[in-house]
Amino acid sequence: MKIKPFESILSNYKAVFFDSYGVLKNYNGLIKGGEETIKYLEEKGIQWLVLTNDASRSPIQLADKLRVAGLKAISSEKMISSGMMAREFLRSKVRVGKVAYLGTEASAHYIEAAGLETIPVRYINSNNIEEINALVLLDDEGFDWFRDINKAINLLLKRNIPTIIANTDKKYPVSREEVAIAIGGVANLIETVVRKRFIRFGKPDSQMFMYAFQQLRNQNEIAKHEILMVGDTLQTDIMGGNKFGIDTALVLTGNTLKERAKNDIKSYGIIPNYICESIAI
Amino acid sequence: MKIKPFESILSNYKAVFFDSYGVLKNYNGLIKGGEETIKYLEEKGIQWLVLTNDASRSPIQLADKLRVAGLKAISSEKMISSGMMAREFLRSKVRVGKVAYLGTEASAHYIEAAGLETIPVRYINSNNIEEINALVLLDDEGFDWFRDINKAINLLLKRNIPTIIANTDKKYPVSREEVAIAIGGVANLIETVVRKRFIRFGKPDSQMFMYAFQQLRNQNEIAKHEILMVGDTLQTDIMGGNKFGIDTALVLTGNTLKERAKNDIKSYGIIPNYICESIAI
Amino acid sequence: MKIKPFESILSNYKAVFFDSYGVLKNYNGLIKGGEETIKYLEEKGIQWLVLTNDASRSPIQLADKLRVAGLKAISSEKMISSGMMAREFLRSKVRVGKVAYLGTEASAHYIEAAGLETIPVRYINSNNIEEINALVLLDDEGFDWFRDINKAINLLLKRNIPTIIANTDKKYPVSREEVAIAIGGVANLIETVVRKRFIRFGKPDSQMFMYAFQQLRNQNEIAKHEILMVGDTLQTDIMGGNKFGIDTALVLTGNTLKERAKNDIKSYGIIPNYICESIAI
Amino acid sequence: MKIKPFESILSNYKAVFFDSYGVLKNYNGLIKGGEETIKYLEEKGIQWLVLTNDASRSPIQLADKLRVAGLKAISSEKMISSGMMAREFLRSKVRVGKVAYLGTEASAHYIEAAGLETIPVRYINSNNIEEINALVLLDDEGFDWFRDINKAINLLLKRNIPTIIANTDKKYPVSREEVAIAIGGVANLIETVVRKRFIRFGKPDSQMFMYAFQQLRNQNEIAKHEILMVGDTLQTDIMGGNKFGIDTALVLTGNTLKERAKNDIKSYGIIPNYICESIAI
Repeated sequence: MKIKPFESILSNYKAVFFDSYGVLKNYNGLIKGGEETIKYLEEKGIQWLVLTNDASRSPIQLADKLRVAGLKAISSEKMISSGMMAREFLRSKVRVGKVAYLGTEASAHYIEAAGLETIPVRYINSNNIEEINALVLLDDEGFDWFRDINKAINLLLKRNIPTIIANTDKKYPVSREEVAIAIGGVANLIETVVRKRFIRFGKPDSQMFMYAFQQLRNQNEIAKHEILMVGDTLQTDIMGGNKFGIDTALVLTGNTLKERAKNDIKSYGIIPNYICESIAI
Repeated sequence: MKIKPFESILSNYKAVFFDSYGVLKNYNGLIKGGEETIKYLEEKGIQWLVLTNDASRSPIQLADKLRVAGLKAISSEKMISSGMMAREFLRSKVRVGKVAYLGTEASAHYIEAAGLETIPVRYINSNNIEEINALVLLDDEGFDWFRDINKAINLLLKRNIPTIIANTDKKYPVSREEVAIAIGGVANLIETVVRKRFIRFGKPDSQMFMYAFQQLRNQNEIAKHEILMVGDTLQTDIMGGNKFGIDTALVLTGNTLKERAKNDIKSYGIIPNYICESIAI
Repeated sequence: MKIKPFESILSNYKAVFFDSYGVLKNYNGLIKGGEETIKYLEEKGIQWLVLTNDASRSPIQLADKLRVAGLKAISSEKMISSGMMAREFLRSKVRVGKVAYLGTEASAHYIEAAGLETIPVRYINSNNIEEINALVLLDDEGFDWFRDINKAINLLLKRNIPTIIANTDKKYPVSREEVAIAIGGVANLIETVVRKRFIRFGKPDSQMFMYAFQQLRNQNEIAKHEILMVGDTLQTDIMGGNKFGIDTALVLTGNTLKERAKNDIKSYGIIPNYICESIAI
Repeated sequence: MKIKPFESILSNYKAVFFDSYGVLKNYNGLIKGGEETIKYLEEKGIQWLVLTNDASRSPIQLADKLRVAGLKAISSEKMISSGMMAREFLRSKVRVGKVAYLGTEASAHYIEAAGLETIPVRYINSNNIEEINALVLLDDEGFDWFRDINKAINLLLKRNIPTIIANTDKKYPVSREEVAIAIGGVANLIETVVRKRFIRFGKPDSQMFMYAFQQLRNQNEIAKHEILMVGDTLQTDIMGGNKFGIDTALVLTGNTLKERAKNDIKSYGIIPNYICESIAI
């Protein structure tokens, strides 16, 4: 599979979905050439959205972070986060009561936006445990792991409530050489110990793609074959795009290293339509 | 959680999604009272569709089987099968070439309907292996397990092609006392041995629900909270409906036995909005 | 399966292996009647040993805790812990260098006893990372989970060294109503993220049983059918005893509740030779 | 890690354990130089045994196959198979009654050798199902997969009996380019569908190593550090030898290809003491 210039593949599409981390930016800031690419898309009238498995911040804050990094054209309307999928679920299925969470205060935005009362897991006690109607895992920071993961497990052993995972990633890079466990990894630990089935949102699940697709269609007629998903991670971005039925391009600025790309594609059996060095044109 | 009469919960909804096996019929034929329920829905103007993880037959044949069993109001337009999701994937992502399959000849319908050439796994040989662009697992019958599961594994070790699972169920009941392995169970075996990631269609995945939802919306305005999913299986029907954001009712005429329902709900942590003895009203 | 008095089954055996937590003691202290049972064994000349998946303390400290709880006849020679299996591995396979660990200082005993230098994971840095020859997971306490689990993951991504799990339990009861994640659960999280295979010691693995068997044989001739394993946990004590080829008795004073015993035995497919209320005679 | 000549590492050991397939022989017959190596060991007084995860034949037949391939010095006393571990279990834990099996008639030897009556799964019916006291999975051949795997599942849903897996391998090579699913892979499928825990014998489990170690010690004093395990498979031979506490050498004539050896060692985190091209000296 040959590496192609990103520009050469764009002409086939009316819209592009970008993953955020590893595609638009990484631990060094904005990906080189990223801003020019966005300008190019806007000039050509190609629509674009950002699909991120990040529930640590509200869409407004996520957009702010990209803007501060240098992506001036971003706005919160262009951000579609896995947290928003969790928010929709809470709104339609939980409806009332307190929702316990693991994550930062900023991440609790998604619960509040569903009109529900938030309670950090650390404040659960025998007086309020019966009022809790759901548990949401939002971010790997903002809580004491030992105390609060154990509290979350005991909550789930006592109360039969839905548990929502707002980010399915198991790990994420924090520098060129270091990774950190993401909340999706913590979710697996809890799920194994309590032996229940959690509800997961985020790529590769189709729901985020459907939400983004619907957003495009609210503005213009568009078909699936006119959309390209651009991502750095085979198991989420490329798997999800493929399954949803849109074309996919793998970029080599994030999780998938250039020297391992072909091997990874073969060993996972997840095959993008294109491989590009980066989104730079 | 109290068991409610099915009729008592219907008034809240404009549309109902039924699972087929274990809900509309089982190994004894049509569920008692099923036909009256469908008549009742039609009189009340409540729309209904059938969502089935069955890729062993075309929608026309699936509808025929229900009609023969006694459900006169069924038509193929009301059938939404996991095979149809696989067909959409093949149409949009594979497009050309031969598609190998495990399943009956009838199940190969979904490949042909995508405009692709079918080849049973048993006919793969060194002359045609390079022309095969996908493998689809459709049904647990129609092939020699020992010979063809081993052939499928060697196909996947030699060719880097997508593998599609058109039915995620691991087992299904064949009588009151006996079960059989479904093609989703065979898929797990193959996936473990070749260590690749397959693409799965069927409940609890959102794509079938989205397809059904879209079909309803093509006719009338409808919101998610106006739809009820009725199923007998917690991990597929109820999990999928919950995650998609619609209400769910568990019936006790299939996989979930009455004496185990409460325990299963608690031990899986998958919670339906209602429990009903059956769909009879 | 009928519940039998513990005394009635003892006459068949020349030696008894006891699990510690849930069998000899629990969160309330020594199991009622435990001391009398041990006296009875000693009078009858039936040998006994304690096999525990506990690597949080040295055998001397483990015996001390049982003695303080009231079991006067205990001595450290009767304690066989999963930590001792880890110690043997370190002695025979690692031999030299620093060994990093997650756990309390007391748990690090097993590394020192192998003649190796210990380093808590939190003190790993770029200066000493190359000197580390193994990682051992000993106990769920004694470290900051967020910081040190992440540090352990980065250690394993940088250094190709064996990782040893000295306690395979996923959770343990801390009171009648609360559980806590054990280090075996943390090990699963790390293993999933780094995608490596760790080396696990502790029941149900045969090595602890073999070690205990050997200890008996160093004193007297004894055959496997003359030994009884007594435990409260199907997946470790009973599975391990069965697999090793000795008889097994399940007691209902720990992980397996009386009202769930028959169901658990059936659903796991792990079948003890006997069920007893407790070890009391 | 440097590749070393096999002869150069032998001087450190008083005994060598060889895996059979991929080490002593492969699909082409005896490994080149294998006979000379065995002669060399016998001249030097180095003891040797064969440890194989093969339960398809009796030790006598396994030895015959190696002798026919050209290894004249082999005798059945030198063969230690995973089937023998299953036999010991049946003898000590099942003791009486009928034992159902999946495998060839030759593989049923291990059940008969335990003094038990054998019944192929295909002959199970409502008249004899209550007499069956265990199920043993021995070999991937000798039965109709579709019919008999489904029969085995229904047996386990109806009868609460132990299930023994006499070969944990998931696949095995049948030619330079083709693999086949081994009975260990079939076991995983059945275990997933019935949701029970099976009892597995074979490397990397310690029991085979312990059995072999005991056999050596019945003849002469020997310590673990004086034994070398030679294997072609990281997850069974090397993992098992490491865990048991003996030194390990990976050879490149079987499952682990030369070009992938270093990568596989790193990605699994299973580290042999030595790597050798083959056992040729």
